[in-house]
Amino acid sequence: MDLPLVPATWLNPLRLALEIAATVAFALSGVMAAARKRLDAVGVCVVAFVAAFGGGTLRDLLLDQRPFFWVRHTEFVWGILGLSVAAMLFMRQRHFEPTQRLMQWPDALGLGLFAAVGVDLATTVGMPAIIAVMMGMITGVFGGVLRDVLCNEVPQAFSDHRPYAVCAFAGGWADVLLRQLHAPDWAPLLACVLLTAGLRGLAVWRNWELPAWRV
Amino acid sequence: MDLPLVPATWLNPLRLALEIAATVAFALSGVMAAARKRLDAVGVCVVAFVAAFGGGTLRDLLLDQRPFFWVRHTEFVWGILGLSVAAMLFMRQRHFEPTQRLMQWPDALGLGLFAAVGVDLATTVGMPAIIAVMMGMITGVFGGVLRDVLCNEVPQAFSDHRPYAVCAFAGGWADVLLRQLHAPDWAPLLACVLLTAGLRGLAVWRNWELPAWRV
Amino acid sequence: MDLPLVPATWLNPLRLALEIAATVAFALSGVMAAARKRLDAVGVCVVAFVAAFGGGTLRDLLLDQRPFFWVRHTEFVWGILGLSVAAMLFMRQRHFEPTQRLMQWPDALGLGLFAAVGVDLATTVGMPAIIAVMMGMITGVFGGVLRDVLCNEVPQAFSDHRPYAVCAFAGGWADVLLRQLHAPDWAPLLACVLLTAGLRGLAVWRNWELPAWRV
Repeated sequence: MDLPLVPATWLNPLRLALEIAATVAFALSGVMAAARKRLDAVGVCVVAFVAAFGGGTLRDLLLDQRPFFWVRHTEFVWGILGLSVAAMLFMRQRHFEPTQRLMQWPDALGLGLFAAVGVDLATTVGMPAIIAVMMGMITGVFGGVLRDVLCNEVPQAFSDHRPYAVCAFAGGWADVLLRQLHAPDWAPLLACVLLTAGLRGLAVWRNWELPAWRV
Repeated sequence: MDLPLVPATWLNPLRLALEIAATVAFALSGVMAAARKRLDAVGVCVVAFVAAFGGGTLRDLLLDQRPFFWVRHTEFVWGILGLSVAAMLFMRQRHFEPTQRLMQWPDALGLGLFAAVGVDLATTVGMPAIIAVMMGMITGVFGGVLRDVLCNEVPQAFSDHRPYAVCAFAGGWADVLLRQLHAPDWAPLLACVLLTAGLRGLAVWRNWELPAWRV
Repeated sequence: MDLPLVPATWLNPLRLALEIAATVAFALSGVMAAARKRLDAVGVCVVAFVAAFGGGTLRDLLLDQRPFFWVRHTEFVWGILGLSVAAMLFMRQRHFEPTQRLMQWPDALGLGLFAAVGVDLATTVGMPAIIAVMMGMITGVFGGVLRDVLCNEVPQAFSDHRPYAVCAFAGGWADVLLRQLHAPDWAPLLACVLLTAGLRGLAVWRNWELPAWRV
């Protein structure tokens, strides 16, 4: 990781833009889940926050890392608060379906980005490969899981039979592999994002289904 | 915070009394939630414990603070255990409604006290203002949230449309503000408790409702 | 604890065998809970993992201990993954009831073993007796609680009125007591496992019921 062949500076603004877009997508999934359960304004804000940051926070708790992302970047806390209030003022139920369609790409790319961030952090603190991949999955998926637990629903990631967490699983392994091959340091992140989002896109497009329990 | 103009010693016994009353109120909310779901004796004790200490414990996990309050004060653990057993022996469903009414004031004052304790701890470990206020809210509110999650209910704090967490939010900001104005060190706590409980009392009295999602 | 009268080497392979059997029993309880809720393959794996390791992981979070068992022993992670896949391929609904009956003993012994492990760890880091017993209970019971929360069910340990957590509670106190009497260092573990599993066995055999809330 110490000899990047290509300077990765052009990746940084791209990464920040993706981070913001993905956080908005995750938070909006929380807003809509809360609205469907008829939660009040407090519920909307909390569920949006948990959907956006729950995965990374759980990962940091498990890896014993502090400070959390949202403590270092309080502007994101204000952003989620503003987004929730704006959604309550301007968003109506008829907007849910188009919003969800629109958010599919930032959501899929965000899943890949968050998985890569989780793998990166876990590897840095010396976790073995399988644990690093798990931490990547947790980062990308458990915000949605905690959102559904708070809304008293079976987590969608475990029950809708659409590949989601497995895409992050595949992306995470690509990331870990490229790291072990000493690829230039922008490569694992990029591979993880592209593979995760690509698989997710394919799964949605081709209507792939996860194996279900056979009675 | 270094020049308290009034010695705050008279506040300490008052604070302890409030702490006990609030813990009883929170634990009883857990006992009654468990009873409504027909949980067994183990469920009653665990849900009472989580309702009383879940918020502070989650805050300490997030802020990476140890030991927890209930580890330092094991007499509170025994107290909750005794309270749960006593409730199972002597409390009947017809007592629920008067108990809830009776507990409204210790609950509201406790919400304020726990919020102030959360703000205090978060500020001490160097958190920015918005995070300190969040930690105050979590301290006061998430015991009830975890209680409802364990009981497989949508958290009441997010769905009953009565101002509760927002009162702690307002109280927390008052606390943070007075700290930044270098008020004498009993002032932030007192302001937080009085503003939180006052707002909560007003909200209950005037039947205030939080904005709901408009379809 | 410094003068074991009997060398405990013969206990170690026995303990490992029990650890594996208990982990399988706990994981299978997760697999079957997930199957009953018709979760997909991802849900089955995650719920199996949480059922097996959730209790110990929560204990380590509360006691601020790292690395987790499953980080030190990644072979167990692979094992759970393999077990989940195998269950999805070969296990059918008609196998659930005999599996549950078969798993009763490894489950009861595992409850005792995990409780003893929790007491041991908590005592080592200086926790008072009641907290050590609580940590033992959490280790043995909260895997199942988190499993049920993820499956959007009221936790079975709090609602089925069968003694389960209380057996671990009794076993935990036996463990703590023998430690305070400076018994040889294999004794507390053994006593905890035998008392917990014995009580659980008795409770199942005699159809004992926990006191319920009287209306």
